[in-house]
Amino acid sequence: MSLPPERNMKVLVQGIDLSEAASRVGKALGTRTINPILEGIKLKAENNTLTLTATDLELGIEKTINADVALEGEAVIPGKLFLDLVARLKNTAIEMGIEGSKLVVKYMENKMEFALLSVDEFPALAKLENADWFTIHPNEFKDLITKTVFSAATEDSRPILKGCHLDLTDKTLTAVALDGYRMSLAKRQVEKASAGISVVVPARSLNEVAAQLEGDEPVVVSVQKNYLMVDLIHTRLVTRLLEGDFINYKQIIPTEAQTTITVSKAQFDEALSRAYLLARGDRNNLVRLSASGNLLTITSNTDFGSIKEIVPVGIEGVDITIAFNAKYFADALRVADDEHLKIAFEGASKPAIIRPDKDKGESFLFLILPVRVL
Amino acid sequence: MSLPPERNMKVLVQGIDLSEAASRVGKALGTRTINPILEGIKLKAENNTLTLTATDLELGIEKTINADVALEGEAVIPGKLFLDLVARLKNTAIEMGIEGSKLVVKYMENKMEFALLSVDEFPALAKLENADWFTIHPNEFKDLITKTVFSAATEDSRPILKGCHLDLTDKTLTAVALDGYRMSLAKRQVEKASAGISVVVPARSLNEVAAQLEGDEPVVVSVQKNYLMVDLIHTRLVTRLLEGDFINYKQIIPTEAQTTITVSKAQFDEALSRAYLLARGDRNNLVRLSASGNLLTITSNTDFGSIKEIVPVGIEGVDITIAFNAKYFADALRVADDEHLKIAFEGASKPAIIRPDKDKGESFLFLILPVRVL
Repeated sequence: MSLPPERNMKVLVQGIDLSEAASRVGKALGTRTINPILEGIKLKAENNTLTLTATDLELGIEKTINADVALEGEAVIPGKLFLDLVARLKNTAIEMGIEGSKLVVKYMENKMEFALLSVDEFPALAKLENADWFTIHPNEFKDLITKTVFSAATEDSRPILKGCHLDLTDKTLTAVALDGYRMSLAKRQVEKASAGISVVVPARSLNEVAAQLEGDEPVVVSVQKNYLMVDLIHTRLVTRLLEGDFINYKQIIPTEAQTTITVSKAQFDEALSRAYLLARGDRNNLVRLSASGNLLTITSNTDFGSIKEIVPVGIEGVDITIAFNAKYFADALRVADDEHLKIAFEGASKPAIIRPDKDKGESFLFLILPVRVL
Repeated sequence: MSLPPERNMKVLVQGIDLSEAASRVGKALGTRTINPILEGIKLKAENNTLTLTATDLELGIEKTINADVALEGEAVIPGKLFLDLVARLKNTAIEMGIEGSKLVVKYMENKMEFALLSVDEFPALAKLENADWFTIHPNEFKDLITKTVFSAATEDSRPILKGCHLDLTDKTLTAVALDGYRMSLAKRQVEKASAGISVVVPARSLNEVAAQLEGDEPVVVSVQKNYLMVDLIHTRLVTRLLEGDFINYKQIIPTEAQTTITVSKAQFDEALSRAYLLARGDRNNLVRLSASGNLLTITSNTDFGSIKEIVPVGIEGVDITIAFNAKYFADALRVADDEHLKIAFEGASKPAIIRPDKDKGESFLFLILPVRVL
């Protein structure tokens, strides 16, 4: 079978560029899909650039690198194999060209030929035109994602909870994720914005966005219909949005506190992580927190033994004893980067709220439901 | 239930010592056994030392550390939980004592209590008395193990092949492992020896021995009846031996070669590892090697594409084309640390032999059976 001449791509690139690009777009490769085309990486050579694209239909990633283009054209090749190969060719020039029904990749004295997949069947990434947009510092966006996305649901029972709600109002971007047992909320200021935005983005897509955010240049985030797009330098991520209404979470955040403790994050983390070791033997990872006399006592009991950890704290309000799933505290402490935290309790059957000790602007807030114990 | 007074152990140790010891003996902990006692670590305090022991009945590890012993005694506690806890207590003193039916571990202002398992049910490590023995430099022993043990069988169909044969004759220690498709052989000189030895040691036990070998002091290896014991400083490993006769492997090592190539290990490894990427798509990881005109050509073809790698080599003898499972070459190249290798072929249906280029004493030898192709 001979291919039409416009597909007779021929291009020369540097291994270091190609391997980095393949590794980035590889994060959107479909795995074990029923449609093999989604396991392919698309190469497009034009205007002395080579663009690599991969998508699993939920997330798509596109990356453009410099190239000497002898013949413009396109090809789709098995993605995993291609990226594994080029990961081993960082220090050499790589020539790629279509010969017959193969993509021939030449390096040093060697070559690998890839079976071609159908360029026509490869799904195009959504184009966002006249979209709403905002710009934000990459570190701020990364931090916003990291502090919230881990609280998204992992089960399919309520699909909307597998996403993170992003709300942009008056230059304040609020991210919220919750799974029915705990909730994370974080707020950051954007730099510029065309309009307000309210969308639910799949947690997995946001994790990939966070992993690729770097540098000091503001990133452009665009939203249109069912897609959100993040533009980095030479890299573009496009994700589908989740459809449906997000939970009205504002009503579940308590506004009053009977007890508020102030604790060193490091001390609380160390003590809790030891208690969690034991609590893992319990179905609910159950630990009890008791605040009294400027001490927080963390206890857990299982068939394997028991543990009692004591942490000095400041206490305002009444003494309290309350039980939690230790995992939810451990998850929150992992991403909290403040030296001291405030934890507010409204009673033993009401959620706990964790905030930075000195926080005017709700930079983050974790809400954790207690476990009822007999 | 009150325990007899001789079990009222009370001891003070440093966290750094205890965590290192628990981590070492933890490698012999049973996992998912039907007998929970094998998931325990035994503590024995006497003579100002604390000895930790774990065993899964195949491998046992015992490690002794310094301790302030207030009361001598013994306890067995859930091993995984104990070692996870002490791994987080490296920078503190730790007091351990039996109180009632618990082992109470106190650190800083905190404590964890462990349920006690039965000291009487904990299996004693085999005692080797009047055993045959040899001494060897730890690096030499480690190298001998590393170069051979990966070739042992992983399937249960022939249990003896899950071990590594150790033969000591005239101060030459020979290790051999084979799985029916490839074989590794390595030889090292021991320092002193009481007698000749010929045993088959489980590969998994030898891997743990290799992982714990360190320092410059000769290690003492003892063999008696069904056990082999390795004595390191303050650490002792005892493993059961495999019963039965090992394969008579000497007859399968070809003595003549029609073709011998000399190749840079690094160049061969790089080329082969790229070919292996593609060959993984084939059930047999099939690659073809062709030696001709001072070039070694490595090729592989699968549904995903094809690869052709060329490596400069020296050739003595006739040209040859022969097919192999790339994995076996990749495994051997991973542990071969010589700059150049010699590969000898006796014909396309006979095994290949890999040796260091400059080797008088058979420091190692890998034998790989070819794959018959149509």
